[in-house]
Amino acid sequence: MPPALERLVKNLQRLPGIGEKSATRLALQILRWPRAQAQELAESIGVLHERIGLCSRCYTFSEQDPCAICSNPKRDASLICVVEEPGDVLAMEKAGCFRGVYHVLQGVLAPMEGIGPEQLKIKELLSRLEGGHVEEVIIATSSTAAGEATANYLSQVITETGVKASRIACGIPMGTDLKYADQMTLKKAMEFRTSL
Amino acid sequence: MPPALERLVKNLQRLPGIGEKSATRLALQILRWPRAQAQELAESIGVLHERIGLCSRCYTFSEQDPCAICSNPKRDASLICVVEEPGDVLAMEKAGCFRGVYHVLQGVLAPMEGIGPEQLKIKELLSRLEGGHVEEVIIATSSTAAGEATANYLSQVITETGVKASRIACGIPMGTDLKYADQMTLKKAMEFRTSL
Repeated sequence: MPPALERLVKNLQRLPGIGEKSATRLALQILRWPRAQAQELAESIGVLHERIGLCSRCYTFSEQDPCAICSNPKRDASLICVVEEPGDVLAMEKAGCFRGVYHVLQGVLAPMEGIGPEQLKIKELLSRLEGGHVEEVIIATSSTAAGEATANYLSQVITETGVKASRIACGIPMGTDLKYADQMTLKKAMEFRTSL
Repeated sequence: MPPALERLVKNLQRLPGIGEKSATRLALQILRWPRAQAQELAESIGVLHERIGLCSRCYTFSEQDPCAICSNPKRDASLICVVEEPGDVLAMEKAGCFRGVYHVLQGVLAPMEGIGPEQLKIKELLSRLEGGHVEEVIIATSSTAAGEATANYLSQVITETGVKASRIACGIPMGTDLKYADQMTLKKAMEFRTSL
């Protein structure tokens, strides 16, 4: 393999879910592109870190500080949705179902990997609750074991400040056949049923 | 979404098999990388077209001309393996089962898309057969409809020059349970059975 191709394949393999075969396929495709298109991809990767930083209020990725959401007067600043990663903010915004503001933890509690409350943006969340402008914190961490443990911890420390804490619902995903849902999800869906 | 992130997501979506969700996931991962690692990826894409061209003899991707395989005196130049794409040369070399040289067609016959023999490197293959140094051409196009049609066409024009043409075997892939093989593959496997 030509060294320049091998170098790109090696770099692409560092991406999540990209093995040697996929990396080779992608690299060959980029080589088949018009040169300008490959340059455009290279440049967009090159300027990424330069342009994007963390919002100093909610810790999501942003090109401005505070981010477009935190600085939007139309967003309800009394409602904070806590998520794990900046990607969760993107997903939530795409769904367009939330008019409050966010707080990105930058991870979940993982004691085995040395990630305790101090390693996450929890202190920063609690300082946003001071002053009494926040009415509710919606905890939207993942419904994984680590996400649930983080949600439990957060619900305790938030409640101690006197602010209402809530958790997004766990249940059957829309469009899913009941018989394909796993046992834990079914159990949760029964537990969190709503009266009609 | 920050514009710089959106730009990268748009560029990544041009890659084969990468939709909006995967592109976003990859872009977020690159943003999470150390800056130097992202720069390294950007640069390896940026220099790709500059460094790599086509070998003027076999038309595979190469940083030198002729390529490392064509200029290797240990390779048997009397045996040419014809493949569709440069990626096929990489796959074959990785298997390490061929000691001859290659010829990359740069595609397959696709009359509906306006790709006839003139659009492929067939004239160039035939000119390599002049002089009488080549003893056999192994046609290793894919076992798809287009690949088979291309193989049939090639076998005719090669045979007309007096050089022996052969086709790689079609059969059950190694490690595959017979009952999962498709009908066409089973039919071919029976047809091309070898006596023991």
